[in-house]
Amino acid sequence: MKKTIITISRQFGSGGREVGEKLAKDLGIPFYDKELIEIAAKESGMDPELFVEDDTRTSLGFHLIGALGYSLGGPLSTITELSLNDRLYLVQSQVIEQVAQEGPCVIVGRCADYVLSDRDDVLNVYIHANMNDRIKRAVHSYEVDERNVEDSIHKIDKRRANYYEYYTDRKWGRAENYDLSINTSTFDVDGAVQIIKDVIKD
Amino acid sequence: MKKTIITISRQFGSGGREVGEKLAKDLGIPFYDKELIEIAAKESGMDPELFVEDDTRTSLGFHLIGALGYSLGGPLSTITELSLNDRLYLVQSQVIEQVAQEGPCVIVGRCADYVLSDRDDVLNVYIHANMNDRIKRAVHSYEVDERNVEDSIHKIDKRRANYYEYYTDRKWGRAENYDLSINTSTFDVDGAVQIIKDVIKD
Repeated sequence: MKKTIITISRQFGSGGREVGEKLAKDLGIPFYDKELIEIAAKESGMDPELFVEDDTRTSLGFHLIGALGYSLGGPLSTITELSLNDRLYLVQSQVIEQVAQEGPCVIVGRCADYVLSDRDDVLNVYIHANMNDRIKRAVHSYEVDERNVEDSIHKIDKRRANYYEYYTDRKWGRAENYDLSINTSTFDVDGAVQIIKDVIKD
Repeated sequence: MKKTIITISRQFGSGGREVGEKLAKDLGIPFYDKELIEIAAKESGMDPELFVEDDTRTSLGFHLIGALGYSLGGPLSTITELSLNDRLYLVQSQVIEQVAQEGPCVIVGRCADYVLSDRDDVLNVYIHANMNDRIKRAVHSYEVDERNVEDSIHKIDKRRANYYEYYTDRKWGRAENYDLSINTSTFDVDGAVQIIKDVIKD
């Protein structure tokens, strides 16, 4: 099955977002990241309340039971107990499912690999880098305070890991979650883009 | 720096050893796995006792302090307290350093990625696969008892993880330890070989 939808998970400062943007540009397909998915969710006018009464029949309900049921150690008794964050996750997941349904695209973050795990046209990529390069990128591209930069990087990674592990039954950063994991300290951003283009072209 | 030495770490049943063998054959370079490194260590006649008196000046001593000192939560007081396993690790590490020094090669397992971490001509690859494919390979290629095959796979992985984590300061299976991680359920063995050949040819 040809892989036309690429999800990218990434360590903070690894250049993963840049890999995703360049890849989408090179392939001439849409690019979605956290901000764009949030905007799309808002613009869609989707109300999380809509899902409440009919949870078992939507794929979102399925993801929710799968993800939260697992994380919380048992099935949810009522879906109305969802927090605002959980509802946001649901709406964003539906946006991800919709954009994937519309055709080839690149999606960065938001557990897209997990949300789309039932599709077989998805390539899941993890982008990481050595700490020294992540520090340089964090200071240069994200203007993180140089004095506490390594601490900041660890905190952001931890937030991403917590988010991922809360909504999925997987450990963030483990190679086995992905089809391909690439170190941009070895291959740099352009090298990573090339590797991905090579593996999906067949 | 051109990568001419390839280390392969792998989940049991992922086909990682096969990837290494095919890659070495295609590139026309030597292939080393656990058994071959053990034989080489024995044939070398190297006596682990040789390292005892001069630990701080050998790179093996360095690895040992780095690895065991970290694992045991503090520096070793005397290196003569080493277990047989630790001595075996030291001799095998020296064999790995020697074969790497001799020229391009493929090395599977034995923490070769960690042992060779000071060299910049090494590409570290992790090979993994989905559980269903690992079960098929374990039953077919390794004749693991079909009834308890998933249990056996978990146990062997756990043994590999323990070995890796005891001798290094890293978590086995985390993408960040490697330059490249490849899922053979997505790309199969030949696909993984091709990806590695493509990334080292530049």
